[in-house]
Amino acid sequence: MASSLLTRQLAISLQQNLCLAAPGCRYVSRTATKTVSEFEYDAPSMKTAVPGPKSQELMRQLGEIQNVGAVHFFCNYEESRGNYLVDVDGNRMLDVYTQISSIPIGDKSFLCESLFSQSAFVNRPALGILPPENFPDKLFESLLSIAPSGMSRVQTMACGSCSNENAFKSMFIWYRNKERGYASPSEQEVGTCMINQSPGCPDLSILSFMGAFHGRTMGCLAATHSKAIHKLDIPSFDWPIAPFPKLQYPLEEFVRENAQEEARCLEEVEDLIVKWRQKGRPVAGIVIEPIQAEGGDNHASPDFFSKLRNIARKPYRIFNTWMGDPSKNLFLSEVLNVIRRENLLEEVTRSGKALLQGLYALQTQYPHILSRARGQGTFCAIDACNDATRDSIMLKARNKGLFMGSCGEKTIRFRPALVFKEYHVHQLLNILNNILAEHK
Amino acid sequence: MASSLLTRQLAISLQQNLCLAAPGCRYVSRTATKTVSEFEYDAPSMKTAVPGPKSQELMRQLGEIQNVGAVHFFCNYEESRGNYLVDVDGNRMLDVYTQISSIPIGDKSFLCESLFSQSAFVNRPALGILPPENFPDKLFESLLSIAPSGMSRVQTMACGSCSNENAFKSMFIWYRNKERGYASPSEQEVGTCMINQSPGCPDLSILSFMGAFHGRTMGCLAATHSKAIHKLDIPSFDWPIAPFPKLQYPLEEFVRENAQEEARCLEEVEDLIVKWRQKGRPVAGIVIEPIQAEGGDNHASPDFFSKLRNIARKPYRIFNTWMGDPSKNLFLSEVLNVIRRENLLEEVTRSGKALLQGLYALQTQYPHILSRARGQGTFCAIDACNDATRDSIMLKARNKGLFMGSCGEKTIRFRPALVFKEYHVHQLLNILNNILAEHK
Repeated sequence: MASSLLTRQLAISLQQNLCLAAPGCRYVSRTATKTVSEFEYDAPSMKTAVPGPKSQELMRQLGEIQNVGAVHFFCNYEESRGNYLVDVDGNRMLDVYTQISSIPIGDKSFLCESLFSQSAFVNRPALGILPPENFPDKLFESLLSIAPSGMSRVQTMACGSCSNENAFKSMFIWYRNKERGYASPSEQEVGTCMINQSPGCPDLSILSFMGAFHGRTMGCLAATHSKAIHKLDIPSFDWPIAPFPKLQYPLEEFVRENAQEEARCLEEVEDLIVKWRQKGRPVAGIVIEPIQAEGGDNHASPDFFSKLRNIARKPYRIFNTWMGDPSKNLFLSEVLNVIRRENLLEEVTRSGKALLQGLYALQTQYPHILSRARGQGTFCAIDACNDATRDSIMLKARNKGLFMGSCGEKTIRFRPALVFKEYHVHQLLNILNNILAEHK
Repeated sequence: MASSLLTRQLAISLQQNLCLAAPGCRYVSRTATKTVSEFEYDAPSMKTAVPGPKSQELMRQLGEIQNVGAVHFFCNYEESRGNYLVDVDGNRMLDVYTQISSIPIGDKSFLCESLFSQSAFVNRPALGILPPENFPDKLFESLLSIAPSGMSRVQTMACGSCSNENAFKSMFIWYRNKERGYASPSEQEVGTCMINQSPGCPDLSILSFMGAFHGRTMGCLAATHSKAIHKLDIPSFDWPIAPFPKLQYPLEEFVRENAQEEARCLEEVEDLIVKWRQKGRPVAGIVIEPIQAEGGDNHASPDFFSKLRNIARKPYRIFNTWMGDPSKNLFLSEVLNVIRRENLLEEVTRSGKALLQGLYALQTQYPHILSRARGQGTFCAIDACNDATRDSIMLKARNKGLFMGSCGEKTIRFRPALVFKEYHVHQLLNILNNILAEHK
């Protein structure tokens, strides 16, 4: 029943959104401003199982020079557009994983035209010493234009791990500056830091949460606790790890139970801070994800974060060669222009709601397979009954033209781009439903 | 005398290399293949002191949103070409610092034309899971085409720190795999690693050298020992630190003394390895720079490195979101093409020799100011008598249109691009000589 419902929804949605006549590529000439639906394809289209023969041959070639264990397939990025990723075998898939949730408005986007003329893409300055003339302006146009209120300063870095490493370092420097009353460091501190010893390199810690993922460089890794494979064999720091709330979903049905669980975790945070102070490794800072993603898409309430911040309130020498990459800043400027011009946040709120409702419908129909649908916007997830089932669903979906991600032990994660519309939701739900209906 | 000699050399060299008629910009139309001298300017040209008024105003603006303590001036990268960096006040400087020694063939190079059409610059794939079709080919064309013999595999990363962090992790994983006889990890190891404890997170170490610079993320920073300001207040690992040989220059005049010094350092390396094994933190790997740069441009002999390797011989789960950036790989491919097409290695061997000879001449003429000239290729350095003199020479040089870098306590470092020709050497020596002649 859900299957036909979904199919009907899809048809209606496609009519409404696309005035669809014939299938195939809707890509038109590269002139003027294009909307997403003018720019991209209208549906998945599969020619082979994935990975197809060309991908397999390329995997063999690349396998001779590096580990290819994580490669899904090889892509034809010239042909990929918007929500659709095209592989080298000509398979066109609806992409709700978006380069590990890293490209905000889809593949090969309409950005190309305006950006190709920018020299920032081939001239990379060391921003910390020789910034280009437009650097302050571009920071105001991009990062600062969307900074949370009260955040009036910004430091660019080249990637997430680097940002977190430097955030940790800032916390340590801030903590020690406060401890010595903003006086100059002692000779002993300057001397001992050169040989990795305290007091120059102090025994301070960062409190993180079980299930967290903050990156895989050695500082970040000490705050990461999502998968053993990330951490095994790598020396680490003795830093405290608090439990992240394990909430029951949908959140609005378990308000009391979830509040209790969050209170338990906050109490543990306070205990750990005391314990590590007694150990002689005081907590200089706390790091937490707004939604714990890699660890399984675990949510917590605004109340939890606000109380955690209250706990944290009781407790520049940030530099490297590149200090980020101005071409990425230009990207962000353009991405923000597109988001505003096309009202993508409204769109994605609408499609996120449709996605979550669809996932609720699927878990109601297949309660032995799916549970714990959850999400904010299109940042959604659902659990399978076990990891084998999750993996099997994902592989089948890929062969039907739906490319999704996984996280946690048995979670499917949805990370579509911001150009993901309601009709894409229905394509997704339709493919998922077909797979579940066939599932033994 | 050296001054006039240099001036004469400069004039001859300019005639030979440029058939110079009129001063000014030699930039010609952007068609076909251009050589360096067709592409760039022919001399520095200064309009204001540096930083000029426009740079100062931009510093004030940027200072409102981030720390600008390290900013020298703001650049006009559209106007910068080859060996000449142009600032926003219209000052044109001979650039022998090249974005902290990071852009191989100069500013705004002739690469632009061929690269602008590449979509890799605006479509960034997560290389570890969804590489583009041309990825294996491009790796062979770029990194592997210049890999040392015997190195047949390559893993790209986005920056130097990330590469080193992952190199360290590889050493730890390799060491532990060997220790457990390539068997699967125990349950205890898998369990303890999630909470940062041994045996899952083992007490292993990396041996590094005093004066080293390997990056500023927390793992790299534990192997970095060049300046206290990099390390102060940041928790670190108890890892062994060996002395880097302090050689006397020119190397060929102090063969016996330098061999003794290198032997002393190697002996210390062996002692530290034993000591840290006894401490329960065995050394899993050694990290060293071929020329210790940030620490003061310290050289060691091929014999030293070969013996260190012999010591090291007695003792994949490498992944992140981007796994590098394919646009940088395309860069490298193009850079290598230019290097081969223009015989830049031959050129730079010639100009490096001229640079070092020139530095020898200067230190002979100004022995109270300069000493220890050293270098390989154009990777050259010279020491001033103290840091204040070094800094003063550098500021005066900048105002005369020569932009250099510093390292160590009192060292000037030269890091020109590979398009640095003999006539650029003479420009450089001429400016330096004028400053030294005026120096009190």
